[in-house]
Amino acid sequence: MKALVYTGTQSLDFRDEPMPELQATDSLVRIEASGICGSDMHAWHGHDARRIPPMILGHELAGRIEGGPRDGERVAINPLVSCGHCRDCRAGLPNLCASRDLLGLGRAGGYAEHIAAPTANLLSIPDQLNAVHASLMEPTAVSLHAIHLAERVLNRPISECRTLVIGGGAIGALAALILEQKGARQISIAETSSFRRNSLKAMCAAQVYDPLSKDVPSGNHFELVIDAVGSGATRKAASELVRTGGVISHIGLQDNQEGLDTRRITLQEITFIGNYTYNQTDLQASLDLLEDGSIGSLDWVETRPLSEGAQAFVDIHEARTPAPKIVLIP
Amino acid sequence: MKALVYTGTQSLDFRDEPMPELQATDSLVRIEASGICGSDMHAWHGHDARRIPPMILGHELAGRIEGGPRDGERVAINPLVSCGHCRDCRAGLPNLCASRDLLGLGRAGGYAEHIAAPTANLLSIPDQLNAVHASLMEPTAVSLHAIHLAERVLNRPISECRTLVIGGGAIGALAALILEQKGARQISIAETSSFRRNSLKAMCAAQVYDPLSKDVPSGNHFELVIDAVGSGATRKAASELVRTGGVISHIGLQDNQEGLDTRRITLQEITFIGNYTYNQTDLQASLDLLEDGSIGSLDWVETRPLSEGAQAFVDIHEARTPAPKIVLIP
Repeated sequence: MKALVYTGTQSLDFRDEPMPELQATDSLVRIEASGICGSDMHAWHGHDARRIPPMILGHELAGRIEGGPRDGERVAINPLVSCGHCRDCRAGLPNLCASRDLLGLGRAGGYAEHIAAPTANLLSIPDQLNAVHASLMEPTAVSLHAIHLAERVLNRPISECRTLVIGGGAIGALAALILEQKGARQISIAETSSFRRNSLKAMCAAQVYDPLSKDVPSGNHFELVIDAVGSGATRKAASELVRTGGVISHIGLQDNQEGLDTRRITLQEITFIGNYTYNQTDLQASLDLLEDGSIGSLDWVETRPLSEGAQAFVDIHEARTPAPKIVLIP
Repeated sequence: MKALVYTGTQSLDFRDEPMPELQATDSLVRIEASGICGSDMHAWHGHDARRIPPMILGHELAGRIEGGPRDGERVAINPLVSCGHCRDCRAGLPNLCASRDLLGLGRAGGYAEHIAAPTANLLSIPDQLNAVHASLMEPTAVSLHAIHLAERVLNRPISECRTLVIGGGAIGALAALILEQKGARQISIAETSSFRRNSLKAMCAAQVYDPLSKDVPSGNHFELVIDAVGSGATRKAASELVRTGGVISHIGLQDNQEGLDTRRITLQEITFIGNYTYNQTDLQASLDLLEDGSIGSLDWVETRPLSEGAQAFVDIHEARTPAPKIVLIP
């Protein structure tokens, strides 16, 4: 099969690879759509010690089962592979499984014509949803999961909260769309790229601003701040901008630098929530949201042939593409 | 009246002071018991910019109303003074009031024979509870409030959790006693002072250990870690010791140094909760706990005359007293 292989820092090779080998619990899926995630970019930059070249990246996947009892079924793939029998898996928290892995991380991902995926991880795609939009299930579930955890802690519902999303990549943009669907009182997005600010303004009703400009919100304002970057600088901003008694929802993993103001967090009784991926319910709820149009038309997704995937990575790196999401089509 | 006046770094003067002036909303209270808090020690060390000498410290107070319609009533004092009419006060969150103050911080405290306290802040002491034990209402409410906030976030009840308290001062000791009352699966206390470790072993069923020794718990173990110190070192320890999916409850304000591992917190989906003081319900619930013996005999409290209060501060500073709490009696 053809595959886009990550061969080293800033290097991708579109070439022939052997067909994936199936384990007894796997199904073969012909990939129809495979999104580029910030963590794939992170690996491409050589910054992810867990993704070791040569390997096939890609974990935002939709396609069609080939063979077996579900032959021909259209499926979105849950890329999180967990053991299924530990305390956390049995508690419905497979994202906390100590032996968790991810397709496109420890196992081969989906920048390819085919993938071997655990059959239990294949979710049926609703008829009305095309494969490109179904591949958004995974990043949508990341944002939905984080917002759900925050909702358990917020003193009042999202519909009464002023909210800020730091970082307008796909996770941030999807978070803003979900907040809009939930009727948040205010939605702001902090995004440094002018390209991205323009596309964010077109795709949602949020107030989009440049955090490096002088025209930024005053501190102590937002009941909920979602940090979809996860750097020292964004944690510092989140610490200042979150309102007394509010919540910082932390999704990004850009660096582990200092930034969080634990003194203000303590004196102002703020809650800081770490988020990692999703569970089955988040994935199913994301398919529902994508299918029924609740988070808009999704026409902001850009598609490119898998064979031109290497250039897509370069364009994202050089901030030459306004779309918050590029999906590769084998 | 006689008062113990904080006159400068490591300096306290027991001397005559004018009687407090009452505002229309205040009552005069004759102090019968006034505990020494870690934050009073912090001020005495010259490390609290909010407590400016000369002033009367002390905010863990019980006494008897003198004058007015409630003359003679035995009361414990809620030292948190809030405006009562802002959004947070009206929401039942007076601890988040932007204009909050504390007796013994911005206003005169209770290391004195009398204090002027807002009448609305005076809670009736149950008959069976003596003044010394009633003065524990305030620190008990700090611990109870933090545990309550953590309970809202924990995936399972305290009774199914392994818990760690970092710091065995009064807040930590009271937290351990409350966790014991709630039936926690395991309670450990990390305390560097051997004096305190011995008294902690006598007062509760916790496993008490020296975090500076080699015999410390392994990482990723405790569903709940209560950091009752709040230093870079304790946040680092909390980050390591908290179990995947668990909660760090942060009460202390020792420093704002780096220490929190936001990467682990994110990848392991940990929640970090900042805590500041309490609300009226926490205070009332604390009086209930203290009265009905739920958290033990309270015979670990040491009392000293207010006139000898300066020496008590020195003894605490030099770690020459095993008691987690010294209460001064005017």
